[in-house]
Amino acid sequence: MSLNIHSSELPENERSLHEFWMKEAIAEAHKAESLGEVPIGAVIVRNGEIIGRGYNLRETTLDSTAHAEMVAIRQASIALNSWRLLDCQLYVTLEPCPMCAGAMVQSRLPLTVYGTTDPKAGCAGTLMNLLEEPRFNHRTEIIQGVLQEECAELLTSFFRQLRRKPPKS
Amino acid sequence: MSLNIHSSELPENERSLHEFWMKEAIAEAHKAESLGEVPIGAVIVRNGEIIGRGYNLRETTLDSTAHAEMVAIRQASIALNSWRLLDCQLYVTLEPCPMCAGAMVQSRLPLTVYGTTDPKAGCAGTLMNLLEEPRFNHRTEIIQGVLQEECAELLTSFFRQLRRKPPKS
Repeated sequence: MSLNIHSSELPENERSLHEFWMKEAIAEAHKAESLGEVPIGAVIVRNGEIIGRGYNLRETTLDSTAHAEMVAIRQASIALNSWRLLDCQLYVTLEPCPMCAGAMVQSRLPLTVYGTTDPKAGCAGTLMNLLEEPRFNHRTEIIQGVLQEECAELLTSFFRQLRRKPPKS
Repeated sequence: MSLNIHSSELPENERSLHEFWMKEAIAEAHKAESLGEVPIGAVIVRNGEIIGRGYNLRETTLDSTAHAEMVAIRQASIALNSWRLLDCQLYVTLEPCPMCAGAMVQSRLPLTVYGTTDPKAGCAGTLMNLLEEPRFNHRTEIIQGVLQEECAELLTSFFRQLRRKPPKS
């Protein structure tokens, strides 16, 4: 069961606001790309201000937990001096994996907005929906499809370039 | 669908070995308790050696991601200089939540051993089984029920004492 709202269902002014913040998440994804990391980026917004930013750093930090969302959640917790991210919205370019979806539930995030779906690991409606699981002690609303094409193209072009590289000798 | 093995199904010598390492996870849980944190502990073992330890530090660090397993996974990744925790076993006193189960899949852990089940958030067979989800790109085997009573009693006695405390004036 998915209660996801697609951005195309939103009024123009709301959609524009979400696109504004998603552009910031895309800017984070570009930082990952410049390090040779899979380009995924996230920001956390509260009262019209970014309080957490993150981009995928798995290879650079050799840390499987260093996904964009996790980095942003930790930064936002420091900014708020609380592990509860009340009144916050998380923007991420790619649908969250089970770990990141679990972290969103753990941090009581009320809203997650994502760009493009992840058919391999997406746990915000694609493979399953951990954000709106009625048996957990918290549920996170979802808006999906914000700047979907840009967010998907980031990944497509990254993997296209990767395949073009000559194998290491 | 759960492929969990219960420790009671194991031969005596195997069960003893798992109990040996679970005692180390319980020792980590006591460290959490001494800080007033919910007592949950974890260790990661490779070739008969502990390469990662962790205990719940959510309140102390104000970080919703500072669960025992996450702390241990990060420490083990540093020890191995790799985000892939191949040939490792994770021991944890309580069944993992969705975030931690997701992190185990992300880090390619081959085996998770846990003490007692979590009826509220357990995602290694109780509410769902994210460790053995056939659609993810990795599956982690599970052994459960190792020193179950000791692991459960840690939590029961912590919450009993919490309820006894007079309310703050």
